[in-house]
Amino acid sequence: MKILEALKEILPEERVSTNHTVLEQHSSDESYHTPHLPDVVLFPENAEEVSRIVKVADKLEVPVVSYGLGTSLEGSMIPHKGGIMIDFTLMNKIVEVRPEDFLVRVQPGVTRVQLEKELRKYGLFFPVDPGADATLGGMAATNASGTTSVKYGIMRDNVRDLEVVLPNGTIIHTGNLAAKSSSGYHLNGLFVGSEGTLGCFTELTLKVHGIPEYSMAGRAAFDSIDNAVAAVISVLQAGIPVARVELVDEQSIRQINAFSETDYKEVPTLFFEFHGNEAGLEQDIAFTKEIVKDSGCKEFVFESDTAGKKRLWEARHNAAYAYLHGNPGKKQMVTDVCLPISELAGAIKDAREAVDSSGLLGGIVGHVGDGNYHILLMVDTENPMEMEKASEVNEQIVQYALARGGTCTGEHGVGIGKQKYQRKEHGEALDVMQAIKATIDPRGLFNPGKVVDMKS
Amino acid sequence: MKILEALKEILPEERVSTNHTVLEQHSSDESYHTPHLPDVVLFPENAEEVSRIVKVADKLEVPVVSYGLGTSLEGSMIPHKGGIMIDFTLMNKIVEVRPEDFLVRVQPGVTRVQLEKELRKYGLFFPVDPGADATLGGMAATNASGTTSVKYGIMRDNVRDLEVVLPNGTIIHTGNLAAKSSSGYHLNGLFVGSEGTLGCFTELTLKVHGIPEYSMAGRAAFDSIDNAVAAVISVLQAGIPVARVELVDEQSIRQINAFSETDYKEVPTLFFEFHGNEAGLEQDIAFTKEIVKDSGCKEFVFESDTAGKKRLWEARHNAAYAYLHGNPGKKQMVTDVCLPISELAGAIKDAREAVDSSGLLGGIVGHVGDGNYHILLMVDTENPMEMEKASEVNEQIVQYALARGGTCTGEHGVGIGKQKYQRKEHGEALDVMQAIKATIDPRGLFNPGKVVDMKS
Repeated sequence: MKILEALKEILPEERVSTNHTVLEQHSSDESYHTPHLPDVVLFPENAEEVSRIVKVADKLEVPVVSYGLGTSLEGSMIPHKGGIMIDFTLMNKIVEVRPEDFLVRVQPGVTRVQLEKELRKYGLFFPVDPGADATLGGMAATNASGTTSVKYGIMRDNVRDLEVVLPNGTIIHTGNLAAKSSSGYHLNGLFVGSEGTLGCFTELTLKVHGIPEYSMAGRAAFDSIDNAVAAVISVLQAGIPVARVELVDEQSIRQINAFSETDYKEVPTLFFEFHGNEAGLEQDIAFTKEIVKDSGCKEFVFESDTAGKKRLWEARHNAAYAYLHGNPGKKQMVTDVCLPISELAGAIKDAREAVDSSGLLGGIVGHVGDGNYHILLMVDTENPMEMEKASEVNEQIVQYALARGGTCTGEHGVGIGKQKYQRKEHGEALDVMQAIKATIDPRGLFNPGKVVDMKS
Repeated sequence: MKILEALKEILPEERVSTNHTVLEQHSSDESYHTPHLPDVVLFPENAEEVSRIVKVADKLEVPVVSYGLGTSLEGSMIPHKGGIMIDFTLMNKIVEVRPEDFLVRVQPGVTRVQLEKELRKYGLFFPVDPGADATLGGMAATNASGTTSVKYGIMRDNVRDLEVVLPNGTIIHTGNLAAKSSSGYHLNGLFVGSEGTLGCFTELTLKVHGIPEYSMAGRAAFDSIDNAVAAVISVLQAGIPVARVELVDEQSIRQINAFSETDYKEVPTLFFEFHGNEAGLEQDIAFTKEIVKDSGCKEFVFESDTAGKKRLWEARHNAAYAYLHGNPGKKQMVTDVCLPISELAGAIKDAREAVDSSGLLGGIVGHVGDGNYHILLMVDTENPMEMEKASEVNEQIVQYALARGGTCTGEHGVGIGKQKYQRKEHGEALDVMQAIKATIDPRGLFNPGKVVDMKS
């Protein structure tokens, strides 16, 4: 009660909610992880309000969790210790577009699609595309990436500055507007991917790119996943600057066809995209065709018009939803390892065998140009045996990756699901992370138990 | 004496030096900053030895400074509190090349040119090119960049993993071999650019690239710096993926011609390079020619053969040495600000005026595609009035950049010279940096007084 009173001194009543439906909306994400209610949901409108909220939380020792749109796949923002949930919905303004500088300044609640629409007016686009229409604040918190990262980098590469409210209420900037800097320690990199454990983001300055003069997209069909992966490696080796290269297995194409009403051939497929000038692309594509043919590509179909390209990428992005739609009542456990590319074929083969022997339905999609792939495992969260089997598959996949210099999470973040692998993956470097966490958030109130569990 | 005894238990006598000449060799860098002797110079051969050295330093509270080749331009490794200097000369092995993964593992004493030679055998190259033949360990410590960063990124973008000996002697890895990761806090980014203040690097895993199929280089001559800068902005706006675009002013071309025996037209010039496939480059170059002509380019001369391209970039890289050679007895104070590109023309104009009114000799060269430029100010370090004038020019240039969202150092690092701007540039974020420093190096023994001065 004391906390509610204190909060109502900061925000008007209508922006402080303990309504059960609202609490419930903020209790879960898109993952299989167990929901948990926050005690109160707040809707601040600016950094100053966030700072005041945080100071109250600090004084009364109440946990603080940030909420964008709840698209996490690892329970990153499930408030499993209750406390204050800060919802950034009302901080959704595109503050400034600086086309000459290829920069945009946004509030954390701006969504990817909202930004895309605005930038198009300037001939610009923001390249990080995790599929879901997440908020930019959430994407930065998770260090999201996606289909275009093979060319344009991940979230961390495209954040130039963050305005952050620290656990003590201080408002800092982690970067600047320059394209590069060797000044001070790299706080941008530290805060991106910290999943709300070190502070709340209240503004982001992002690097944007010119919409490419010309782009081409197509599907290359293979008779085996092995051949498809081998083709990707050959294309990368040849130095062809692909903008996207995605693996979609037979199973997943089938789900996509059913959901997106496409009629793609139901075989292991690579979805390609190329950006550049017309003459350059023609040469790149001719070369790519040659290479994938040598790796056993049976058919390479290009989408010639904008509508076809749009359909192709929507279909790819909807793969996860296609599985959910096709399997009512089930939830998804999505694996997310990333390995050095030379280890990818072996990893996928091992994963496929693990899924098959588990008896679970599971499809493979992946940002294979980065060595990152996902198994979309369909599970009934009420069925303990199924959940255990799925966990075993996930475990096997992670251990395979860690033994080969990979990471337990390429882009979904640690959240709850990858907590248990942090010590194994980082070794004594985890102590350094814990020390940093303890320094910046000494009371451990910011998204407690996530990323660095102080007990690990 | 106690420290020497302890060190001689770790290393054989010939790798522990207190010889005055050796101390003197490790007392300065390539900058104008005042030299200072270390007490002892050590030559370890592996991380284990470094860890043991560091533990002794910790116990006896002696400063520890790392030394690569001494090419810093900001006094980063001048041991101005004396103590132990760790020279990484003997740790100069290329441990592993993984061509399929576009990765190379090196010891910190490997130099850029040494690496380039080895990678060429695999059709690969490491893109970060600060000009000097620095060590990779030093380049990572400073977060170096250079002419190719506009396309391939800076040091921080190309470090996949570091083996670091922490101030307490623990050996950690800051990353992994995967192309991306959302696991844990981003220690790679934190340690790159920390200038030896958080630990010693004992191994680096770096991202490498395929040598481009085709490359073209040329010089575009302008009648004013303003026009040259305007041309760069237009080329970037048009989305042409230049691999390098360097501004060299009239003054600097004159020094280059004298030093490198070239006969380049002595006017403000842009040095361009393009990487890609032949057809794509032809289209890019045709488009670039059009754009620069609109911005007042008088002549665009392409180097058709490898020798011409090599000569061009050697001449550019030797610009700083050309000034030193042409002005015997003088040293260089090199400014290093980086600004959002829309502010670049104004910044350079302001800087040119500041130099002219100081009466000092000073030329402009710059990685203008990144918004980063240098004034090479020639100074007599024994002449206090000249030093003061140079400091005033540097100060004015930095303040101009900071007032416009820029940074005091784009690539040379903080060292001694940029210490005084840290509070102004980072505001309360500096407190976070200081807290991190205090956590990782609680006794403040690692390169004391650099990057984050605990008193600022």
